[in-house]
Amino acid sequence: MSKKYVYLFREGSSAMRDLLGGKGANLAEMTNIGLNVPPGFTVTTEACREYYDKAEQFPEGLWDQIVPAIREIEQASGKIFGDPDSTLLVSVRSGAKVSMPGMMDTILNLGLNDSTTDGLSRATNNERFAYDCYRRFIQMFGEVVLGIESYKFAAILENIKEEQDVSFDSELSPESLHGLVNKFKNLVRQETGSAFPEDPYQQLQQAIIAVFKSWNTQRAKIYRKFSNIADDIGTAVNIQAMVFGNMGQDSGTGVAFTRDPSTGERYLYGEFLMNAQGEDVVAGIRTPNPIVQLKGENSELYNQFSEIAASLETHYKNMQDIEFTIERGRLYILQTRNGKSTASASIRIAVELCQEGLITKEEAVKRIDPHQLGKLLHRRIDDDVDFDVLANGLPASPGAGSGKIILDSDLAEKLGTAGEKVILVRTETTPDDIHGVLVAQGILTSRGGMTSHAAVVARHMGKPAICGCEALRINYGTKKVYIDGEEFSEGSEITIDGGTGRVIRGIVPMKDPDLSPEFQTILEWADEIRTLKVMANADNSLDSTKAREFGAEGIGLCRTEHMFMEPTRLTIVQKMILAQTLEEREDALAALLPMQEEDFYGILKAMNTLPVTIRLLDPPLHEFLPNMEELLEDILTIKLTQDVEDRKIQEELYHKENLLRKVRALQEVNPMLGHRGCRLGITYPEIYAMQTRAIYLAAAKLIKEGYEVYPQVKIPLVVHFRELEILRQQTEEIARDVMEVQEVTIPIIIGTMIEMPRAALTADEIAPFADFFSFGTNDLTQAVFGFSRDDAEGKFLPHYLNSNILAENPFAVLDRTGVGKIMQYCVELARKTNPDLKVGICGEHGGDPSSIDFCQEINLNYISCSPFRVPIARLGAAQSAIKARDKE
Amino acid sequence: MSKKYVYLFREGSSAMRDLLGGKGANLAEMTNIGLNVPPGFTVTTEACREYYDKAEQFPEGLWDQIVPAIREIEQASGKIFGDPDSTLLVSVRSGAKVSMPGMMDTILNLGLNDSTTDGLSRATNNERFAYDCYRRFIQMFGEVVLGIESYKFAAILENIKEEQDVSFDSELSPESLHGLVNKFKNLVRQETGSAFPEDPYQQLQQAIIAVFKSWNTQRAKIYRKFSNIADDIGTAVNIQAMVFGNMGQDSGTGVAFTRDPSTGERYLYGEFLMNAQGEDVVAGIRTPNPIVQLKGENSELYNQFSEIAASLETHYKNMQDIEFTIERGRLYILQTRNGKSTASASIRIAVELCQEGLITKEEAVKRIDPHQLGKLLHRRIDDDVDFDVLANGLPASPGAGSGKIILDSDLAEKLGTAGEKVILVRTETTPDDIHGVLVAQGILTSRGGMTSHAAVVARHMGKPAICGCEALRINYGTKKVYIDGEEFSEGSEITIDGGTGRVIRGIVPMKDPDLSPEFQTILEWADEIRTLKVMANADNSLDSTKAREFGAEGIGLCRTEHMFMEPTRLTIVQKMILAQTLEEREDALAALLPMQEEDFYGILKAMNTLPVTIRLLDPPLHEFLPNMEELLEDILTIKLTQDVEDRKIQEELYHKENLLRKVRALQEVNPMLGHRGCRLGITYPEIYAMQTRAIYLAAAKLIKEGYEVYPQVKIPLVVHFRELEILRQQTEEIARDVMEVQEVTIPIIIGTMIEMPRAALTADEIAPFADFFSFGTNDLTQAVFGFSRDDAEGKFLPHYLNSNILAENPFAVLDRTGVGKIMQYCVELARKTNPDLKVGICGEHGGDPSSIDFCQEINLNYISCSPFRVPIARLGAAQSAIKARDKE
Repeated sequence: MSKKYVYLFREGSSAMRDLLGGKGANLAEMTNIGLNVPPGFTVTTEACREYYDKAEQFPEGLWDQIVPAIREIEQASGKIFGDPDSTLLVSVRSGAKVSMPGMMDTILNLGLNDSTTDGLSRATNNERFAYDCYRRFIQMFGEVVLGIESYKFAAILENIKEEQDVSFDSELSPESLHGLVNKFKNLVRQETGSAFPEDPYQQLQQAIIAVFKSWNTQRAKIYRKFSNIADDIGTAVNIQAMVFGNMGQDSGTGVAFTRDPSTGERYLYGEFLMNAQGEDVVAGIRTPNPIVQLKGENSELYNQFSEIAASLETHYKNMQDIEFTIERGRLYILQTRNGKSTASASIRIAVELCQEGLITKEEAVKRIDPHQLGKLLHRRIDDDVDFDVLANGLPASPGAGSGKIILDSDLAEKLGTAGEKVILVRTETTPDDIHGVLVAQGILTSRGGMTSHAAVVARHMGKPAICGCEALRINYGTKKVYIDGEEFSEGSEITIDGGTGRVIRGIVPMKDPDLSPEFQTILEWADEIRTLKVMANADNSLDSTKAREFGAEGIGLCRTEHMFMEPTRLTIVQKMILAQTLEEREDALAALLPMQEEDFYGILKAMNTLPVTIRLLDPPLHEFLPNMEELLEDILTIKLTQDVEDRKIQEELYHKENLLRKVRALQEVNPMLGHRGCRLGITYPEIYAMQTRAIYLAAAKLIKEGYEVYPQVKIPLVVHFRELEILRQQTEEIARDVMEVQEVTIPIIIGTMIEMPRAALTADEIAPFADFFSFGTNDLTQAVFGFSRDDAEGKFLPHYLNSNILAENPFAVLDRTGVGKIMQYCVELARKTNPDLKVGICGEHGGDPSSIDFCQEINLNYISCSPFRVPIARLGAAQSAIKARDKE
Repeated sequence: MSKKYVYLFREGSSAMRDLLGGKGANLAEMTNIGLNVPPGFTVTTEACREYYDKAEQFPEGLWDQIVPAIREIEQASGKIFGDPDSTLLVSVRSGAKVSMPGMMDTILNLGLNDSTTDGLSRATNNERFAYDCYRRFIQMFGEVVLGIESYKFAAILENIKEEQDVSFDSELSPESLHGLVNKFKNLVRQETGSAFPEDPYQQLQQAIIAVFKSWNTQRAKIYRKFSNIADDIGTAVNIQAMVFGNMGQDSGTGVAFTRDPSTGERYLYGEFLMNAQGEDVVAGIRTPNPIVQLKGENSELYNQFSEIAASLETHYKNMQDIEFTIERGRLYILQTRNGKSTASASIRIAVELCQEGLITKEEAVKRIDPHQLGKLLHRRIDDDVDFDVLANGLPASPGAGSGKIILDSDLAEKLGTAGEKVILVRTETTPDDIHGVLVAQGILTSRGGMTSHAAVVARHMGKPAICGCEALRINYGTKKVYIDGEEFSEGSEITIDGGTGRVIRGIVPMKDPDLSPEFQTILEWADEIRTLKVMANADNSLDSTKAREFGAEGIGLCRTEHMFMEPTRLTIVQKMILAQTLEEREDALAALLPMQEEDFYGILKAMNTLPVTIRLLDPPLHEFLPNMEELLEDILTIKLTQDVEDRKIQEELYHKENLLRKVRALQEVNPMLGHRGCRLGITYPEIYAMQTRAIYLAAAKLIKEGYEVYPQVKIPLVVHFRELEILRQQTEEIARDVMEVQEVTIPIIIGTMIEMPRAALTADEIAPFADFFSFGTNDLTQAVFGFSRDDAEGKFLPHYLNSNILAENPFAVLDRTGVGKIMQYCVELARKTNPDLKVGICGEHGGDPSSIDFCQEINLNYISCSPFRVPIARLGAAQSAIKARDKE
């Protein structure tokens, strides 16, 4: 006997998501808690996997289970599949374990053919309705199952509407719909070489296969990649009796959330359309009405729906996204699922659900997607500045974005990938636009509501979006956009504010975000839970203050090279580099010392009572000299166009050629692997000596002023223990000297970056000389992969990601297989010779949740990231701690 | 009770080298086999280590053991230490476990003071002799123990010689020597503030301390570094009764080898001087006579010495280097040790010792220093070319070298390190010249014999040397050299031929070496012993043929980029790179295909029956485009100086600017970590496809012609298994296509380079797609250390080596601690998923013996190196196999 591939709704439950998919499990759950769900059954995800495993053959034994299940629907609904006198129609929908809205295919009204349509017409006494269903079904089946291009159906429909001189589909007469059906059937014969299949069972089998196939469309693959969904879990197929929202003005369909998905506020939020099928709402083709209107139109129905919605939320302990249909006054629940919401709404919902006693603090913390938090920390439009609002639309996804108006997704992808900021402007978006949405700063559509495709996808991705902006007209042919009548060419710059729906001329200044009280609450809960310390990377007192506000427990990485780059100092730095003698160099360093001391003073003061880890100079010296190409041009131009006999010209030439010589001498083939980091500190000890002195002098001053400071010195790029041994000794000597002269006590804490494989591989030799290790995962990733980030991301890395050689950009998400392996090895090795060693990470990965999980797994002590990512890191660390605890 | 720090010669044996040092162990051994060795004892290396461990304090209890040992010498010699009536004098000599000729200090005639000198004078009835000893002793003790500079003594001596108008020391009258002694003693008082120590026991203690200290002089440290001797093993001190070669014309001293250290021929080879002390011979101050003259002068003594020499060789089973002294007609053996010889002599000696039945084949193979072999494979002067011989000297160390005449070692070091070729030209060399010798192409001295310092050191280092070139005069003041009267300035170019002793004007063409029959024999023995396969790196048929002659068992690395660089092809390659479309690129590739096919045809044919591993294109494409700086200059020059209205100028400008744009687009920040290797193969599959096709087409052609070919395709720079999976598939498809069309069968063998840490760390994922792994240890070292070789070696690496941060240049000697660790991990991981995987190494390390040892230890299958290093690798692999077997 073959496996059980088919589950009636009453046989399943919400625990069976893996097998039945999210939608199927929910339909089963709703059925079992007694809701009025149209009867149906689910074909399992296992059947889909079997289909792919067996080279796309319909799984053996599956059909034998489907036929009896159809019988069960017939019994429950009192209708017969294919019987003209009592026609059962069904929907066939995909439903993966994880929701992928709009990504896979759905077929409605399956079972219609010439005779059942006539039967339906007779039974409902509504020929218009029956033929409207029939023509929709042929088109949907034609597109999804038979692969006929959508525009071919649309063209026929437009033709007939023009012939009949009507604007809306619903104005077409039954006769016109008859004609439309015939033309559609002719199109099918023409395109496929066969007649449209009249046998409902044949329709059903083909439709199930089509859903299986829709798992592997290009757009579905891209979506899964973006959403980190595995490619091999497959989709279930849900077959369910149809109910009709388009059976006249006492019928309708709608979508509602139990809370506002934009703000998280608790009230019934949604939209409905009378005399319409669900697709009309979701696809954004007609703009629907707010659900509160239903109260006025039919308060009994509204109350009934409200109660169901509330009970579903209690049952699922989460905000629900519910689809419903009213067929001739009777309410059916078609689907419920955990609703997607904006980041700020998610937080409010999680906090309030916890406060309402539905979930625990841990559960609340787990619910927040740290990736989404980033959006809340983005800047928003500065309302104190004057700007020109061109139009208003629906505030479909909060946040603000500026960029060039771009009208098609391919171009948007091209420009966006190249680093340009674009706003994708479309009449409406479809799942085929996903690649354009992905790179855009925001989305602006002229049609569709708050639950249209553009709105749902944008909210999920945390992109600003404005939908249904009626003042917007687009001419794709001339590449012009008209906003409230004013013409804009493609490429003109606009700003959109998805929080308010304002479309604004040009680029508008933005300002820092405020964190909501709920945000603060969830972060406090996260702090209670997490075990990893969260520090920030900050190079000045301003950033340090910001980091502290965001909850950083110290500075994990303070880079000193930016201080060298300041225009007022660069001249001195260049003097130091160009020095011919040690004395000249020391003179320049002496001039830098008080400046550096001031820098460190500011940062240490801002972080009073917290540690500040200062990395000594890291980049190669040539980074502080002028660009060689420009120098060369200057020199050649002087030589070829000026009077080289002139004394002043000669002097200038001499100076520039001197500079060029030094630039050439310092030039490196591979600066990333060159004379930098502690290699500078070893060969020019006076540079590090100056920095060290500045650090301890600043600390001494603050201590005398009553502050509590913890400077930590971090030596970059160590690959051999001798480097650290030598530099640690120099650092300690200077620190002791300062303490003696200044008569203060400053804790001496010295550690090293682990950025090169050799440091990790010989961690046991290095650890005895270190108080802490700090993984520089950016450089480590570069060295382990042999990817120069500057080169890879512009050249071959996009290709590697697109062709699935790499699943993730290893500079964004830590590569556990390679980089992670050597990190884990390093930690284990190091703790063997120095059990008290503190180990952390200070690359950009420190703010990436999946990478934080890994840090927790290999027992690091802290993570350090940019100030704006500190809240994400706090939350991520809490989630990692929960996961680790759950594993135990 | 304290440790036993003192061993009488009769208490020791040759097995006690660690404790007694080489010299001490040999003196003990010689004493115990009944040779006439002056009595004495050895202070152990342990005492020296104790001295350094205890902050340079004379070890406790040592003195209490020395005094009774002196009593033993007194008893054996019948003389009393410090007794004017029967004076015992001793020598105090260093003697480490490993011989470091001339590197540490020696004191002779210790025990002399005013009264014992008088006693000696009376006892020998030779006042001149006694005072000659005394003045030598004061000078030696003054220099070595009291640290007075040598030239101060020399100046006093020269003064007296001038006053007396004599040329040689031996012509000085006893009275003059008396005066000299007084002047020397005054100098000592003046320089040290104290009188010269008259107490022999005080002299002895100070001398022993001085020998301990000599272990850590700068020159000793440099020598140890060059010779790979550990810094912490310490030296023993040998105290031995003096015998005198300068007791008149029936006394003498000499040094002899049991075989010719230049050629290995078996005959007594050496030099002696009558009426002289040993230092006169070794320091090269007087030019001695060939030992064969002794036969004429005193055949009985000569025969006695011959027999002793032969028995010592049989006893030690090795060529001996023997020092002897004749005191009033009686022969004493002062020292014997295994003689150093040239590489070719070592080989002949080892082979002949084996053929004489003294040692086994394994022992013979073990005896050869693979580092020295390299010298034999160097080119020598082409005698078919006319050249101008300026003078002849003693052929002190074979080989030929050309370079600039440089007169001092500091300058030689500076220029040599900067890459200039220099010949160090000196009157004589001393241990203080070691840094100059190290970098010179060869050494030329005007004084000293075949056993002078210059000769011994040069032979050891495998540098050409000519000594005792009497036609050479040097004026250090004017920096001029006169060869046979002709003036040469410092910096003039000469060539020296150390094999014949010819000094030649200018740079002379050189030619390839011939391998001696003994060399071939030892390599055959090595082949019988070794388990590692030895392959060669060769990029063309000429090099392949050379590699085969040298015994390579295949080509382990054939780089294809050099083929792209050939001037005739570069235009086509550039066309390919500049192609705007796939078609244009494929046109250019189609033009390259037959050329590449021809390349591979030649190499595969040359290696008939042996495997040829071809690496597909590796370097970034910008390497094939013109230099950006030059292009920029060209363009600017045209713009500023030419008529830009001219049509032709415009075209040229357009072309150059186009090129510049592409050069800029392809430019990389870190090309080593950029778009190269299989990253090119993945992004431009057509390039690798062309190369693959060319390989299999060439193979097919050869098979049809009756050859047996084994092409192997090597994919560079893999860091993720997917890269290899994709490129393996493409390679297999093309190979099968060629086989089908050409109707031949070619074995498909595909592997990858392991050059990046990630490849090693994920070897288990990669191995299933590979038939072989080939470590690219140069790139791997770069990535593990984060050292760009191009930058490191010119910038900070010399500093790292000089300050002992790194013991070795990791690009020359494999870094076991870091790079080795990851290699070992890789091999173990890879064989888990692919037990049949062949693993080898094809970096330069493949020809380095210590690295070969490591390859054996981690169970690699093969090593591949440049053709000229193949013999070294064959020998090294055999030695590694012996070591591995010995360990089991």
